[in-house]
Amino acid sequence: MPDPLELPQTLDGHFVLHDCYNVMWSAWQSLSIKERDDIATEAGRWLQDEAGVGQIYSALYSGIGHKADLILVHYRSKVDALNRSERGWRRLRLAGFLRPSYSYFSVIEASLYEAIAIAQRKASTKGLAMGSKEYEEEFERELTKEKKVLESRVLRSIPDHRYLCFYPMNKRRGEQVNWYNLPAEERRALMRGHGKVGHKYAKEITQVIGGSIGFDDWEWGVSLHANDPLAIKRLITEMRFDPASSLYAEFGPFYFGIRQQPDELPALMAGGLS
Amino acid sequence: MPDPLELPQTLDGHFVLHDCYNVMWSAWQSLSIKERDDIATEAGRWLQDEAGVGQIYSALYSGIGHKADLILVHYRSKVDALNRSERGWRRLRLAGFLRPSYSYFSVIEASLYEAIAIAQRKASTKGLAMGSKEYEEEFERELTKEKKVLESRVLRSIPDHRYLCFYPMNKRRGEQVNWYNLPAEERRALMRGHGKVGHKYAKEITQVIGGSIGFDDWEWGVSLHANDPLAIKRLITEMRFDPASSLYAEFGPFYFGIRQQPDELPALMAGGLS
Amino acid sequence: MPDPLELPQTLDGHFVLHDCYNVMWSAWQSLSIKERDDIATEAGRWLQDEAGVGQIYSALYSGIGHKADLILVHYRSKVDALNRSERGWRRLRLAGFLRPSYSYFSVIEASLYEAIAIAQRKASTKGLAMGSKEYEEEFERELTKEKKVLESRVLRSIPDHRYLCFYPMNKRRGEQVNWYNLPAEERRALMRGHGKVGHKYAKEITQVIGGSIGFDDWEWGVSLHANDPLAIKRLITEMRFDPASSLYAEFGPFYFGIRQQPDELPALMAGGLS
Amino acid sequence: MPDPLELPQTLDGHFVLHDCYNVMWSAWQSLSIKERDDIATEAGRWLQDEAGVGQIYSALYSGIGHKADLILVHYRSKVDALNRSERGWRRLRLAGFLRPSYSYFSVIEASLYEAIAIAQRKASTKGLAMGSKEYEEEFERELTKEKKVLESRVLRSIPDHRYLCFYPMNKRRGEQVNWYNLPAEERRALMRGHGKVGHKYAKEITQVIGGSIGFDDWEWGVSLHANDPLAIKRLITEMRFDPASSLYAEFGPFYFGIRQQPDELPALMAGGLS
Amino acid sequence: MPDPLELPQTLDGHFVLHDCYNVMWSAWQSLSIKERDDIATEAGRWLQDEAGVGQIYSALYSGIGHKADLILVHYRSKVDALNRSERGWRRLRLAGFLRPSYSYFSVIEASLYEAIAIAQRKASTKGLAMGSKEYEEEFERELTKEKKVLESRVLRSIPDHRYLCFYPMNKRRGEQVNWYNLPAEERRALMRGHGKVGHKYAKEITQVIGGSIGFDDWEWGVSLHANDPLAIKRLITEMRFDPASSLYAEFGPFYFGIRQQPDELPALMAGGLS
Repeated sequence: MPDPLELPQTLDGHFVLHDCYNVMWSAWQSLSIKERDDIATEAGRWLQDEAGVGQIYSALYSGIGHKADLILVHYRSKVDALNRSERGWRRLRLAGFLRPSYSYFSVIEASLYEAIAIAQRKASTKGLAMGSKEYEEEFERELTKEKKVLESRVLRSIPDHRYLCFYPMNKRRGEQVNWYNLPAEERRALMRGHGKVGHKYAKEITQVIGGSIGFDDWEWGVSLHANDPLAIKRLITEMRFDPASSLYAEFGPFYFGIRQQPDELPALMAGGLS
Repeated sequence: MPDPLELPQTLDGHFVLHDCYNVMWSAWQSLSIKERDDIATEAGRWLQDEAGVGQIYSALYSGIGHKADLILVHYRSKVDALNRSERGWRRLRLAGFLRPSYSYFSVIEASLYEAIAIAQRKASTKGLAMGSKEYEEEFERELTKEKKVLESRVLRSIPDHRYLCFYPMNKRRGEQVNWYNLPAEERRALMRGHGKVGHKYAKEITQVIGGSIGFDDWEWGVSLHANDPLAIKRLITEMRFDPASSLYAEFGPFYFGIRQQPDELPALMAGGLS
Repeated sequence: MPDPLELPQTLDGHFVLHDCYNVMWSAWQSLSIKERDDIATEAGRWLQDEAGVGQIYSALYSGIGHKADLILVHYRSKVDALNRSERGWRRLRLAGFLRPSYSYFSVIEASLYEAIAIAQRKASTKGLAMGSKEYEEEFERELTKEKKVLESRVLRSIPDHRYLCFYPMNKRRGEQVNWYNLPAEERRALMRGHGKVGHKYAKEITQVIGGSIGFDDWEWGVSLHANDPLAIKRLITEMRFDPASSLYAEFGPFYFGIRQQPDELPALMAGGLS
Repeated sequence: MPDPLELPQTLDGHFVLHDCYNVMWSAWQSLSIKERDDIATEAGRWLQDEAGVGQIYSALYSGIGHKADLILVHYRSKVDALNRSERGWRRLRLAGFLRPSYSYFSVIEASLYEAIAIAQRKASTKGLAMGSKEYEEEFERELTKEKKVLESRVLRSIPDHRYLCFYPMNKRRGEQVNWYNLPAEERRALMRGHGKVGHKYAKEITQVIGGSIGFDDWEWGVSLHANDPLAIKRLITEMRFDPASSLYAEFGPFYFGIRQQPDELPALMAGGLS
Repeated sequence: MPDPLELPQTLDGHFVLHDCYNVMWSAWQSLSIKERDDIATEAGRWLQDEAGVGQIYSALYSGIGHKADLILVHYRSKVDALNRSERGWRRLRLAGFLRPSYSYFSVIEASLYEAIAIAQRKASTKGLAMGSKEYEEEFERELTKEKKVLESRVLRSIPDHRYLCFYPMNKRRGEQVNWYNLPAEERRALMRGHGKVGHKYAKEITQVIGGSIGFDDWEWGVSLHANDPLAIKRLITEMRFDPASSLYAEFGPFYFGIRQQPDELPALMAGGLS
């Protein structure tokens, strides 16, 4: 049995569903222009209404390539609300012309070790003796602050950048190279290095990490949001050379989408792109 | 030929079928609201009747994501009864609007070694000399008691928690890392450690282990039932660091569902979630 | 080039086709009860007629789970007859409501080494000097007898047990663990051990081994026939710990079916199970 | 950069397409017998005409199992002609009732090393001093002859045996066992051994090797043509123990068909087999 | 964290979409000849118009085999324009008779190291002392020139050769053999060797390398354009023996097409090939 102190501890926030669809073009094109517009407008309004209320976030992307024509992303504070939104969409007339092609269910997570490390650093900076009562109090104060920061991050809204790159991934459990067999300290050092690459791109790219152990087929679902598609290529390329990835990462399929507003859905379904 | 004494011995109980379906939304939506309600009500009643009689258990879940819209779980004391329920469902009008997307056939199993170990421990506690006639009698008495406990577990009803996480898994038979080549004692020690992680979550999560060697494509089908979805994530994450998993487990697809009552099926098919 | 004397030699008998189908329930249910009964009765009669004549064997199973609703098994003395039966079934009206989901083509085989070993053992028992003319004559007499036994086995009819477990498999050709690189004697020793596990279950389970190198995607197709489904689980579990399997076996998908008589097909297609 | 002298050199002949189809039986059966016969007759005539002219070869096979009902094989001297035949078939009314299930694009190839080796052997046999002008002239004469032999082989017509076994394959590029990292001499020695197994079966089985690096998903497409299906099983079994296969071969799916003449297509589509 | 100086640096040009379709022949053939011609002509005109304007390049290929009947290739300077073209095509009536079968999204890239190396070589040739101000100035002048050359390459139009071979690929991240763990110098040396093989075929074959890390499921998409299909086979075969490939390359599916002009689409959809 692993030492519980050695296990990764996360703060979990919004539940997330990436919900991908292909349009059945031949059925769709058999409708009149008027019908298509009505049906797509109805779906756009539903999406607008869904996304309208506090702590309920939904976004629409036009997918590139054959894997998905439409990508919906939902953030909800409860699993049930997530499933309700998924079912709400399927109940729309538009869903009769869509074929679900992929989906991914996860929960936004942040590592608590990062918060602990920051709190320790800040407490140390003040010149307090480590282990002293004053140090501990300062540490706790800082940790509470840090948790607040993390909470705001895991309960965040959907970044509004124009491009979305989504992919699921695992840490490798190979016969020789096995992430889950590494000492905790080694795992943490690797993740710190990995985080530094991410921070370097923080201005250009917003990363949202969804934990999905027990929820879906991979261990994490990664979303990168950016206004420059090449920044996404540069970030993942740089990470691929980082040992946390080069040795330990296994990647699933990549989905790439372009953000569209709900009221742009009729134009999108008519073959345009805003 | 392996030493039969070294082989894992199990007590087998209910046969289990996890039966997953996607709704063909475009065909379903071409029906009138009245027709949909009639058809879904009929299916809900069938499920109610199926699940109504002693030792015959059926449950319905709303699946998250594109892999399954509906997940049915059946426990039956005979394989034939399991297949009869599967076919009974397919005969309903609703089945004409569903596409089977996945299924898993297994039998609930419990390791007899656990029972043997407990009986040994209890006999020892009474201060009897191991190997003495008194010890053996006490051991047998305790073993019979323990088997009764296991029997009640493998013949149990479907846990009624709100969330279900189901996944099939294998023990690894790699070129270097091979579960089936380990000495029996090492396998048992690993499983004991693994069991401890499970026990730690016993209040929050009910595990049902289905053995499926010879029945389906993986060796086991694991069901985790919980009211807190994040508890499932924490349990599997902790297990992933346990050597029985980190070195030896291979995982199949994960299915996640939300429990619905049979009479909630019409609402579910109308796009709602209770 | 391998030494031909070192190659496995088999006696080949009936050609076998496992032919699996899913029912297209929505199309099937759009028929009237009368039409369904007529169509299924026609198919049942065809099957009865096919299976009726000497050395032509066909059997029907109700499959468990989504991988196959119907499993047909044909034994024929010629490949052409096998393909003719397959096509004969597809020509029936019922086939218009079925979607082929899987199939497996093999030929029942028995290892000649087993026969040679038995003949050697019998000749030795009589106290004849190995290599002497008398020994050789006795050996040949016994080998001829043994071949007759094997012939009756590879030309057998379909076992009539209630449950069928079918799965294809390969011997591993890994980078370190490679069956085809082992010395012949080691392969034979491993197969002897493997055979002993099989013999232990001989009363409960009838094994039919189909060789399929050059015929289908795996090297063998294994059929286990039993009246107790749990016996199948116990046999495969025990074999999995045997080195021939633990180190060298790779398994494909598992299909599990319940035997039905041809005249039970109409009831089966109506959602029942005899 | 590899030494060009060390690279395998091939003589390339006909371009080959294996073109596999499943019949959509429910649509096909909705036609009248007369319509089916007309449509299949038209397709049979097209095939007859295609296959009629010099250096244009097409053959039809009835496939066993669910992977292909019809297997077409085309040999053409140009890629464009191959694609034209593929498109010609798809344009026929019959194609409206077929679903392409698999295909494989390759070019018949023969190794030039074999020719060089034979020419060297023949030149040596005449007692000429290796390296002498006479030797070189003799060698060139023999090589030209050998190339003619190879040319006639790579530009051959489709063997007319009753059974076809087709499978694609790669040479392994594993982390330890890697064909492409072997010294050229070792590769050639392995291929010579491999060739000997093939030659042993030359009377029973005609092998056609299609090179497909850059053309399709595997590196080669192998066709075995025989009148005895068990000879195919014996050949591939024997090769599997040869180091060129046991260590270095990776196999794709296997397709098995029974040769049918173009004018037998109507009977085949009616569920028969000639 | 990897040393940024050690990371591969690329110049990125046009965004590329390979967009593959299968024709639904049964639906297509249910149209009148006139309708088919109208619909295909409309699509051909759209393609002509798309491809007509500066820096907007689109090409059509007839695919060989079942994986794709039509292959469209688009080069665009912006991701949005690429997605707009994809959607524009799907909006055409023809798209109602096509099923997307594959696609690949990448951006044409050139390695900057090549440019740096060339600039260094040129500066050295002039006899300037490395590190001197004169050397640096000369180097910068040459680098700017080289970047111009590369820019013209990554912003190029679609090569107009008759044959296209497209395949995605990864660099291996195995447990022992791992490209991303190699020292930068070793990676560069391997790529130089690899490049030499490519240069050898430069007259016959135009290579277009699309980087797709973060964009699609593999790391690169490689396009080879040639007028001789066998040249493609020779080039890839030779590269397969080069260590950069033999040890480190992993290949996805291969697509092979024959270039067709937009106004040839009606003939192509009628079963012909220009």
